[in-house]
Amino acid sequence: MMEGACQIHVGMKKIVIGIDIGGTNTAFGLVCDEGKIYGQGRLSTQQHPDVDRYQEELFLGIQQLLRLVEFEYEIIGVGIGAPNSNYYKGTIEYPANLPWPGVTPFVEKFKRFFPALPVVMTNDANAAALGEKIYGAAKNLNNFVVITLGTGLGSGFVINGELLLGHYGFAGELGHVIINHTGRVCGCGRKGCLETYVSATGIKRTVFKLLADKMGPSEFRYISYNDLTAEMITNAALNGDPLAIEAYEYTGEQLGRALANAVLITEPEAIFLFGGLTKAGPYIFEPTKRYMEQYMMTQFRNKVDVLPSGIEQGNAAILGAAALIWNEMLRAGA
Amino acid sequence: MMEGACQIHVGMKKIVIGIDIGGTNTAFGLVCDEGKIYGQGRLSTQQHPDVDRYQEELFLGIQQLLRLVEFEYEIIGVGIGAPNSNYYKGTIEYPANLPWPGVTPFVEKFKRFFPALPVVMTNDANAAALGEKIYGAAKNLNNFVVITLGTGLGSGFVINGELLLGHYGFAGELGHVIINHTGRVCGCGRKGCLETYVSATGIKRTVFKLLADKMGPSEFRYISYNDLTAEMITNAALNGDPLAIEAYEYTGEQLGRALANAVLITEPEAIFLFGGLTKAGPYIFEPTKRYMEQYMMTQFRNKVDVLPSGIEQGNAAILGAAALIWNEMLRAGA
Repeated sequence: MMEGACQIHVGMKKIVIGIDIGGTNTAFGLVCDEGKIYGQGRLSTQQHPDVDRYQEELFLGIQQLLRLVEFEYEIIGVGIGAPNSNYYKGTIEYPANLPWPGVTPFVEKFKRFFPALPVVMTNDANAAALGEKIYGAAKNLNNFVVITLGTGLGSGFVINGELLLGHYGFAGELGHVIINHTGRVCGCGRKGCLETYVSATGIKRTVFKLLADKMGPSEFRYISYNDLTAEMITNAALNGDPLAIEAYEYTGEQLGRALANAVLITEPEAIFLFGGLTKAGPYIFEPTKRYMEQYMMTQFRNKVDVLPSGIEQGNAAILGAAALIWNEMLRAGA
Repeated sequence: MMEGACQIHVGMKKIVIGIDIGGTNTAFGLVCDEGKIYGQGRLSTQQHPDVDRYQEELFLGIQQLLRLVEFEYEIIGVGIGAPNSNYYKGTIEYPANLPWPGVTPFVEKFKRFFPALPVVMTNDANAAALGEKIYGAAKNLNNFVVITLGTGLGSGFVINGELLLGHYGFAGELGHVIINHTGRVCGCGRKGCLETYVSATGIKRTVFKLLADKMGPSEFRYISYNDLTAEMITNAALNGDPLAIEAYEYTGEQLGRALANAVLITEPEAIFLFGGLTKAGPYIFEPTKRYMEQYMMTQFRNKVDVLPSGIEQGNAAILGAAALIWNEMLRAGA
């Protein structure tokens, strides 16, 4: 399970415990400062409706990893990425996809296992943004956005080198910007949110809209909505399928237009795209950039890059969670 | 011309020179730390196509004001609010409404008169936001937005107590967020920008749209587009005119929807509206708040206030410009 080795330093090595809480599973790992994951584990989130029991199992898993470490180490903190989590309060609040209803004081509870350590939690897209800054393609940038394209669309904004959290700790929710208020129904209860167009689910919906609007043949005419995956659409686009390419063009148009508006507010120097849809390469990046520039106000044109994330997909969530702690260390000048 | 007196302190009094550069006129004044304007002057911007000559006249005007000061003082800086200005570079870049084309290194030039002092410049809406923080209704707030409703729509964002400037210094341009990409033609060359709906000009356009769409009588059927002013519409609304009230309702809807989206990105605790349209009172505040909440994502609902600015209209621009310097002093812990 040792997936990488930390560089050899003199004396005791500092490591951070990174935890990524997803709706189905939780991934956790030990991360050293150069971004190597030294040992990684997994736990079902779904099967743990009791959060105390879940935390005990998580702690056991972490202890198992720590027993395998073959060098002297010091744990300097615990970073957690979780949906609907509040950085300021350490709570997870009304999560749609986690088995803990209402408000859970997750950090306060988890600190019983690490009473002397900083335990910091934010949502997965914010964690991804910090991961990009500490380990990825945004190492020298102070103003940038990371867009995570998964089942939904998450976003993390870094402004003057700091994570944008907002007054209540929920800022940076670009996925729920309404781009068409009479548009597609969203899981949040409203209509026309960006993520209903730009996400793995969004592009599926777009393929079905195109199947409805057009008459031509397509391999997707043989597949049910529930059997269709974004990966199939990506592969079809890469194989030159016109309908799949058009679906990506449409996705890029919606994303590009939304980014042109977002740039007016925070004016980043770069926007990084992360997640499954980015495997379509030029089919997503090219229209996104093209429509962003087309709808951009003149003085902002050709100033903002749209780039792929510099973080490997498999490790991103744990690295991002760990980056929460490394970032606090950097800010403290340690 | 002495419009207020600074409070009596022991010893030398600190004052800031505040300058507001508008398309038609420039206003300038001496501002002390409690926000009193001690002397105020005016100069035509329009009639000075030569920026060096303009700056000389401006400096003469400031010297005249200083000669009238009846206490011992120390000038601690010069704050300038100007359209299309760049905080980082001290430049005014391609202004549509100023007589200086291209890029003018305004701060660098003006420093010849004040070589030993900080000279800081930003756009008028950013200055208004700092004015609100130092002298107005946002004194205890660290995350808020100020929307200035004039000929156009300006916005200044304060995040964690700091002005949001962006990587290139032009952030916070909510007036040019596109709310309908097939909508009204904007002076910026694009279509459907928020300020084509929400501004003094925007509400005039809305009245003319309503006159076109509807059949009923209205006092506005006797007035040409060029003779109509936003003030007439405000007065008509306050007198119960249904068409004027509907124009405000429509304006509030567009603004409320745009704010619901903007809140998702920066999550402020309050949004302040400033400028002529706010004289309509409930006719602008009520629909803005109602539509903002209606289109707001659930977890953000009923958390963000929409409030009138706490700064008097006449003094706002000079106070805002001066606040640039007072804010730097506060940040430096002076």
